[in-house]
Amino acid sequence: MGTAAPMLLREGGASGVTVLTLNRPAQRNSLSLPMLDLLEAALAEIGEDASVRCVILAAAGPVFCAGHDLRELTAHRADADGGRGFFDRTMETCSRVMQAITALPQPVVAAVQGVATAAGCQLVATCDLAVAAEPARFCTPGVDIGLFCSTPAVALARAVPRKAAMEMLLLGEMVPAAEALRLGLVNRVVPADALMATAHDLAQRIAARSALTIRMGKAGFYRQVDRPLAEAYRTAACVMTENLMAHDAAEGIAAFLEKRRPVWKDR
Amino acid sequence: MGTAAPMLLREGGASGVTVLTLNRPAQRNSLSLPMLDLLEAALAEIGEDASVRCVILAAAGPVFCAGHDLRELTAHRADADGGRGFFDRTMETCSRVMQAITALPQPVVAAVQGVATAAGCQLVATCDLAVAAEPARFCTPGVDIGLFCSTPAVALARAVPRKAAMEMLLLGEMVPAAEALRLGLVNRVVPADALMATAHDLAQRIAARSALTIRMGKAGFYRQVDRPLAEAYRTAACVMTENLMAHDAAEGIAAFLEKRRPVWKDR
Amino acid sequence: MGTAAPMLLREGGASGVTVLTLNRPAQRNSLSLPMLDLLEAALAEIGEDASVRCVILAAAGPVFCAGHDLRELTAHRADADGGRGFFDRTMETCSRVMQAITALPQPVVAAVQGVATAAGCQLVATCDLAVAAEPARFCTPGVDIGLFCSTPAVALARAVPRKAAMEMLLLGEMVPAAEALRLGLVNRVVPADALMATAHDLAQRIAARSALTIRMGKAGFYRQVDRPLAEAYRTAACVMTENLMAHDAAEGIAAFLEKRRPVWKDR
Repeated sequence: MGTAAPMLLREGGASGVTVLTLNRPAQRNSLSLPMLDLLEAALAEIGEDASVRCVILAAAGPVFCAGHDLRELTAHRADADGGRGFFDRTMETCSRVMQAITALPQPVVAAVQGVATAAGCQLVATCDLAVAAEPARFCTPGVDIGLFCSTPAVALARAVPRKAAMEMLLLGEMVPAAEALRLGLVNRVVPADALMATAHDLAQRIAARSALTIRMGKAGFYRQVDRPLAEAYRTAACVMTENLMAHDAAEGIAAFLEKRRPVWKDR
Repeated sequence: MGTAAPMLLREGGASGVTVLTLNRPAQRNSLSLPMLDLLEAALAEIGEDASVRCVILAAAGPVFCAGHDLRELTAHRADADGGRGFFDRTMETCSRVMQAITALPQPVVAAVQGVATAAGCQLVATCDLAVAAEPARFCTPGVDIGLFCSTPAVALARAVPRKAAMEMLLLGEMVPAAEALRLGLVNRVVPADALMATAHDLAQRIAARSALTIRMGKAGFYRQVDRPLAEAYRTAACVMTENLMAHDAAEGIAAFLEKRRPVWKDR
Repeated sequence: MGTAAPMLLREGGASGVTVLTLNRPAQRNSLSLPMLDLLEAALAEIGEDASVRCVILAAAGPVFCAGHDLRELTAHRADADGGRGFFDRTMETCSRVMQAITALPQPVVAAVQGVATAAGCQLVATCDLAVAAEPARFCTPGVDIGLFCSTPAVALARAVPRKAAMEMLLLGEMVPAAEALRLGLVNRVVPADALMATAHDLAQRIAARSALTIRMGKAGFYRQVDRPLAEAYRTAACVMTENLMAHDAAEGIAAFLEKRRPVWKDR
C-alpha cells in the first residue's frame, strides 16, 4: 500500500469513543475482502480494549458504503473453481463482521452521511443505533445485478417491518432518510453538518455510563431477542442478578438514592 | 357450475405477470373449500410455470375477501362428527394456501380494492407486497361471531407490530388503508382507479429482473427470517454463494461494470 | 399494614371488567417484592374467576410505575449472600408476573396516567393493549444507575422496532406518549381526563364478546407468535377447529347469518 492512506481509519478519543471510518471513497467504500478483514481485526481489537466505551462507524467521501466489491468478486471468476471458494470466503467473512458488531461489548453507532447500499445498508441495519444525515439514502438493489441481497436481508428484516424489507429487496428502490427513520432503520435524521456531532453526542452519553452495565445489557439483549418468551426471561433474569451483584449497580443505585453522581468502576 | 363464471380467474400477460382474481363477488369472495382448492391448484401450477415471473392477487366486486364461508361451515355442523372433520380440512387447506404463497417461487402482490376481513386480511398479510386502494379497509372481526381470528393472527403478527395485531384481533375494528400503511400491512395506498396500474407497475418491475435471482432471494428470505441470527446468516451466506455462481449474477454484475443492460437467462 | 390502604386495589364491576390499581403512590408504585407477590396472587385469582372478562391495569398518583424498589434491593445487600438470593427471587417473581399477564385467560389493558419506567415500562409493554394519557412518558433508564434494563428489554423488544428498543435501553431517555404510539408501545393516546373512560370502553367491548373465544384466541396468539411459520400454522389451525366446535362459535356464526345478536355461553 506504500504511502496510500489506510482503507480503514481508527481514531480514539480520550472520551472513550472510537471512530472507525471506511476510507476507500474512490471505491465507494465497498467491502472488499481486505476491507472486511480490517474491520474484523479492528472490531476484535476494540472488543479487548477496555478504554473504548462506544464505537462510531462512519465513512469518508460522498457514499457511506456500496456493499461488496463487484470488481474483486468478478476477478475471482477466473479462479479454478469459478470463484466459489472466494465467494464463500467473502460471504462468511462479511457475515462474521456483521455478527462481530452485534457481539461487540461496546455499542456501535452508524453515522451515515450518504448512500448505503446492499451490504452497506446491512452495516447500518446491524449497528445498535444509527444516525443519518438528511442526504443519506438506503437501498438493497441486488436484484438489479442478478444478486439478491440475501445476507443484507438478515439484518434488514430484523430492523424494519417485514413488508417494508421485502419491498426494498424486491424493488431495489432508494429509501430516503426520513422514510428510513419511519421504518426504524435509523434512530435520528439530522442536517448533514450535524451528523458527526449528533453521533458523538449519542456515543458520549453511552460512554459516560458504566461500561460493564452496557456490556452485560447489550449481550443480554441479543441473547434473548430471538428466543421464545420463557427462555428469554430465564436468560434476562440471570443477567439482572449478575448485574445487580456488580459494583457499578450497587454504586449507581446508592448514588441515585443519595442524589449524587455515581462513580463507575466498570466492574 | 355450467356456464357460471369460474370463481377464480387467471389471466397471464406476455410480460410474465399473472393476475389471479377472486371472482365470487356475490359471496364477498369468501374462501369456501372449493375456492381454497382452486387457489391451491393455481399456485401449484404457477409455481411450475417458468413463464410466470410475478403474481397479482386481486378480487372482483366491492369486497376483496370476507374470509371463510360461514354458510358452508355452518352446513357441515349437520355432519356426523358435528363438522370437526370439515373444519379441520378447511383450516388445514387454508393454512396450506397461505404457506403456498410464501413458498411460491414468484413474488405475490396483493391488489386490495375493498374490505379484507379475517382470512381475507390474512391473505393480504401473507402476500410479499400489498397495494391498497384508498377505500380498502382491513379487519379481523372473528370476535364478533365467537370465532377468534387465530389463523389470520399468524400472518398478521408477522406483518404489523404486536400490540397493533392484538388490537385488531381483540376489538375487530376496521382499519383504514392509511393506517394499514402506517402499520406495515400494505406497501402503498393509491386512488381506487390507480390500483391495478400500481400493482402492475410493481409486478412488472419484479418481472423484469432475473427470475432465478428473485426465486433464490424470496426463498432465502423466508428461510432465515424466523431463525436465530447465526443460523440465519449461515443460511443466507450459502444462498449468496449459490446466487453468485449462477449465470444471471455473473451477467448482471458484468453488465453493471460495463454500464450496459443485463440479459437474464433465469439460471 | 394495619389501617393503611392496600398497595394493590382490585375493583370488579358487574360488566366483567376488573381494575387492578397499583396503589403505592408515595413510592412511585414501585414493584417491591410484596407488590409483585400481590400482583401474582391477584392475577392467579382473576385467572380462575369466570366473572372477570377483561382486566385494566392502572395506577394511583402521578407516576404509573417506577420499576423495582431500589431501597428494598439495596437493603438486601446486607444479607449474608450480598443480596444474590433476594435479587434472584425478585427477578424471577417479576418475570413470572409479566408472563402471568401474557398467560392470563383475560386480556389486560394498561391505563397509563404518568411516567412508566424500567419494570413499569415493561408492564406496559407486556399488557395486551395499552392506553396512555397525554402526559404519560416511557423510559428504561437502568443505564443511569448501573443496572441495564435487561428484563424490561424482553417485553420492550417484542413491542417496538429493534433499534427503537436499543435507543431506549442505551440512552434511557424519556419517550413521550405520542412517540410511544408511533413505536407501537401503546395503542391509544388520549387527554388525561379521558384515560379511564377510554380504557373502560376498550375493556367493555372485549368483555361483551365470548370469554371462551377471547381466551382461546389470546392463548393461541402467544403460543404461535414466536414460532416458525409452519409450526405456528399447525398450532393456530388446531385452535380454529376447537374454537369452531365450541357453542359460542356456532351461536355467533348463526346469529351473524340470521342478523340477530348472539347470546354467548362462554363455552
